[in-house]
Amino acid sequence: MICFLIWDNVAHDTNPIRWSRPLRPLFIINFSDGKQIRRAFRNIRRTVPEILNILVLFFLSIALFALLALKLFNKRNLTYPDGTPYFKEFFDSIWDLYVLVTTANNPDVMMPAYDESNWFAFFFIIYIIICLYIFMSIILAAIYYNYRNNLKNEIRASVYGKRKKLGEAFELLKVERGGEMVITYQTWCCLLKKVIPKKSQAHIDLLMKILDTKMNHQIVRKEFLQLADLLQLELTEVTDRMTFLERYIPTIFNSTISEGLKKGVRHKAFRYFFDFLIFVNAWFIGFDVDKADWYFLAMFTVEILLKLYTFGPKEFFVRFWNSFDFLVVFSAVIASAIEAAEGASREEFKTLDLLLVLRVLRLVKIFGSIQRFKVVLQTIINIGPSIFTYGGVIFVFYYIFAIIGMEIFSGKFDYYGYETKEGDESHFCGNPKLNGTAFFKYQYCNNNFNDFLKSLVILFELTVVNQWHVIASGFVAVTSKAARIYFFMFHLTCVVIVLNIFIAFILEAFILEYTIDKSGKLESCVETKIKQLGLGIGQGTRKTNPQEVQKDDTELVPNEQLPESSLDDDAESDTDSIPDLSIETGLKFHLKKKSRKKVEVLLQQMFEGEIKPEDEGHTFDENEINVPRKLTLDTV
Amino acid sequence: MICFLIWDNVAHDTNPIRWSRPLRPLFIINFSDGKQIRRAFRNIRRTVPEILNILVLFFLSIALFALLALKLFNKRNLTYPDGTPYFKEFFDSIWDLYVLVTTANNPDVMMPAYDESNWFAFFFIIYIIICLYIFMSIILAAIYYNYRNNLKNEIRASVYGKRKKLGEAFELLKVERGGEMVITYQTWCCLLKKVIPKKSQAHIDLLMKILDTKMNHQIVRKEFLQLADLLQLELTEVTDRMTFLERYIPTIFNSTISEGLKKGVRHKAFRYFFDFLIFVNAWFIGFDVDKADWYFLAMFTVEILLKLYTFGPKEFFVRFWNSFDFLVVFSAVIASAIEAAEGASREEFKTLDLLLVLRVLRLVKIFGSIQRFKVVLQTIINIGPSIFTYGGVIFVFYYIFAIIGMEIFSGKFDYYGYETKEGDESHFCGNPKLNGTAFFKYQYCNNNFNDFLKSLVILFELTVVNQWHVIASGFVAVTSKAARIYFFMFHLTCVVIVLNIFIAFILEAFILEYTIDKSGKLESCVETKIKQLGLGIGQGTRKTNPQEVQKDDTELVPNEQLPESSLDDDAESDTDSIPDLSIETGLKFHLKKKSRKKVEVLLQQMFEGEIKPEDEGHTFDENEINVPRKLTLDTV
Repeated sequence: MICFLIWDNVAHDTNPIRWSRPLRPLFIINFSDGKQIRRAFRNIRRTVPEILNILVLFFLSIALFALLALKLFNKRNLTYPDGTPYFKEFFDSIWDLYVLVTTANNPDVMMPAYDESNWFAFFFIIYIIICLYIFMSIILAAIYYNYRNNLKNEIRASVYGKRKKLGEAFELLKVERGGEMVITYQTWCCLLKKVIPKKSQAHIDLLMKILDTKMNHQIVRKEFLQLADLLQLELTEVTDRMTFLERYIPTIFNSTISEGLKKGVRHKAFRYFFDFLIFVNAWFIGFDVDKADWYFLAMFTVEILLKLYTFGPKEFFVRFWNSFDFLVVFSAVIASAIEAAEGASREEFKTLDLLLVLRVLRLVKIFGSIQRFKVVLQTIINIGPSIFTYGGVIFVFYYIFAIIGMEIFSGKFDYYGYETKEGDESHFCGNPKLNGTAFFKYQYCNNNFNDFLKSLVILFELTVVNQWHVIASGFVAVTSKAARIYFFMFHLTCVVIVLNIFIAFILEAFILEYTIDKSGKLESCVETKIKQLGLGIGQGTRKTNPQEVQKDDTELVPNEQLPESSLDDDAESDTDSIPDLSIETGLKFHLKKKSRKKVEVLLQQMFEGEIKPEDEGHTFDENEINVPRKLTLDTV
Repeated sequence: MICFLIWDNVAHDTNPIRWSRPLRPLFIINFSDGKQIRRAFRNIRRTVPEILNILVLFFLSIALFALLALKLFNKRNLTYPDGTPYFKEFFDSIWDLYVLVTTANNPDVMMPAYDESNWFAFFFIIYIIICLYIFMSIILAAIYYNYRNNLKNEIRASVYGKRKKLGEAFELLKVERGGEMVITYQTWCCLLKKVIPKKSQAHIDLLMKILDTKMNHQIVRKEFLQLADLLQLELTEVTDRMTFLERYIPTIFNSTISEGLKKGVRHKAFRYFFDFLIFVNAWFIGFDVDKADWYFLAMFTVEILLKLYTFGPKEFFVRFWNSFDFLVVFSAVIASAIEAAEGASREEFKTLDLLLVLRVLRLVKIFGSIQRFKVVLQTIINIGPSIFTYGGVIFVFYYIFAIIGMEIFSGKFDYYGYETKEGDESHFCGNPKLNGTAFFKYQYCNNNFNDFLKSLVILFELTVVNQWHVIASGFVAVTSKAARIYFFMFHLTCVVIVLNIFIAFILEAFILEYTIDKSGKLESCVETKIKQLGLGIGQGTRKTNPQEVQKDDTELVPNEQLPESSLDDDAESDTDSIPDLSIETGLKFHLKKKSRKKVEVLLQQMFEGEIKPEDEGHTFDENEINVPRKLTLDTV
């Protein structure tokens, strides 16, 4: 992408219009990494036809209201405050009313009529209720409904596809044992060594143990079909938890003073004290008392050092908030140090401000440590990766519109400040046509298509919708009214359709997380089985002494309480110790929480619960997935 | 309500502040008619605590970003175009960022920083993504989720309540017959004559027949529990369909010419011709060709007269679009006639314009006659009554805020036009403090709290959100910054909470309608039974000759194709004639489509499908409705 941009800027002068450029982001969609983006696009493509009827009706309604407005107002010779005519021409009326449906010119578009007679307010109120509140909600509902169905079908197809291939593999590998078709332990080992060559024999044995519910060292078809889910789980061996200090200066590290110190750091009061300190710091920042900054920074640095000493770097950095803290505080320390060294020449070090500002982000940590906010923050963190997918989708649209925008509007005007004198080239942002426009009055000249970054910023502003008609009016002034088509098309694609699909996704994802939170964890079959084996609920080793950890090193330790970005920073380790079923493997494993990792997993969680484990689909045809045939494999 | 308003205006001068007034709309909630509104309020009350955590986190995030903004910008001495300071004070920063989250000051709030350095755009983009797109979507999702659950529980409680009372009634009325506890035909007649005294014996017999599936003239408990659903169905006797003309001038009405005419009117081409004419008319209106108006009016009048002649008034007006047509065309005819009679004095008859404008609404009829739009329009019409419920809810909030607003802001300024001279009392809308404010520059003086209607209009404008900060700034200028609290509270209650609940309702209702549309009609048990009895799919008598109707006058005619507001204006009557099971009653009945009538029915449809017909609830306690116990009454 970057090379495209550079090349664009170089090649810009020689090629006035290059039609292939807007289509270039389609490459992203076909890149192998863009599987999620491809899926999102397929979903958009399938959703659009379904809502087309509603959109057509929506535009017909706008046209109808435009006719009404024309009839009501055009003989009254009203004008806007700036003197432009009021509902005088049909297409202008449609434009004004379309802008009203985005709310961007409310209440300005109503005021001239409202000043004429109070009763005209009803026309606009009825219009807004029908075209904004009802139609827009219905469009959102239709998108939500169709998006959800399409997603469901996609997931179903992919689950069926997975099962089909595993079924085929089973047919090739099976042998008969005691009247049943099974895969033997030997075949299993051969297979797994090819699939995951880097893993140890103990790991392969453990996986077998998880699948093999009857404990007879054979895997039947039904069990084998869960192999893909099993391989998706990231089981990692737990490494030694001894810290650097513990290993090299054990006498000091384990002395009474040191133990007391560590106990102090582990105590609740330690946390509460520093949480309180963050609040005080926030207060100081808010009321701009800069002098205490050094004191706070020193305190927070001490906090981090103490924690590092107590928990060791490995355990310290595994938690999201600690790493976050470390990054924020130390960048602030460095920035402050440079600032202090430079003394008075502060003006030149404005970039350092950014680093100093990061200190404020420590406050976020407090939010994370309050129980009631955990669910919400966890949801946001879980949805995070998926938001990047939609970021990709939106970027593709932005790219296309940015390139087209640059072709049409590039160089029409520029930002030169607003204290230019008459007669200067740079007066009126270098284009006299802007004289008197709202665009110039609002000082929007920096919103232009002169380079790619500025184009992205202006498109983002258009996505937020407010004042988009003012921005559009500037480009209409320097080109022609036809420029409205560009802005209208952008609004329709990116705001009405893509943004609503994004909202539909968040609705779905959030409701899923919420349901899980209220009803207990949603698990895949494999995870359930792991729990049945007694390996699921593990004892957090975080706060136990290293000695204890060494004692039970044969334990399988799922780090459900130690996820990389856990909010559970100081949760009590109140879970029971588990029955040990994997003693013979002689290894400890972490079961990484997978929902953090991939968008796909979240999507699958959404709908996989609705597909029965035995269900392998009607045929294995993606087009006919709606009528799944049930195969009860137990009786086969 | 009206008398409150009048009294308010009378009493206004004597009582400067009357605290009871804002609370007055609470009466509406407790009126007996306000059952739906009460339910909506109960729902809001239960939903709010659930989203409180998210709201708190949302505001904390805004405060955090405000701190960041303060740190980033306050040493740069930037100003807005009008010279006001830029992120200089903490609470101003919070206000600016809260307004940004409503999008109302985008991109104005960003421009000074963006002009300073392009990279500052990222601060605002990240803020908008987090606080607008993510948080607002999550708030919508949380509201949707909680609203849906609360609604489900409400409906479940009311269904259980109904069943409980019917069960108690059954216990009182039952007698033993052949080992079963039943209600006999005699008891049934006694009971029904008390419940629906105005209905005929035939009607009561028919109801019995619908419930009595075993045809043994006895009703068991399970059947009896459906009595309430049955009584909700509006069965009306079909009256004679002979038209006035047919009865009094049969020779002319049934002559060859007349028959030919009627055949012509019934032909598709007749409809297509007039639909085409509406399009042409719309075109003429759009491009302001007024001269052909009389021609079009005459044509449409002829159309209506011909249809009246052919179908008779009863059959004509039963259909929504015909009544609509009649109203629109004849009000236009009357308006035009008055206008023509008055000749040149058109200026004084501006109110007539409104009637003339109504002609344009005929276009809506075309939308309704296009098959692909029918689903959408039907949905809107079905949701219609429920929207009025929410209209009631919003009115309550509006009333409270309007009264408070009038107490605080009434008479601070007024609209006198903008051509006033300096020194006049009415200059700057009568309040010099408005001088130089954006509020005055935008000419918003007519947006004030000087009377109740204007207050409602301004509150509606605030609901639409755009420019709400400008409106607020006007009132801040004439009072103090504390006025911001009023506008903030209004936005939080009416836009963030109530409006999102409204959108949640439309989402739910639309998805329901959509699902029904895709999967066939959702019916109550009773409706299913009626269809099983063969009384469900009836032959439309609309286009058959009266003679034929007289022949089969013993038929039960459900007017599924003749609902009051049917969009099915010219559908072919292609359904089969039904087996006649109600011959002995000697009556024809219309089964009125009930989904048009009450919000409650739509709500019940939403969730009743999820409750099994036999399920009478765990206990009959509304507080414990979550764990329903299943009673299979067949085995009792």
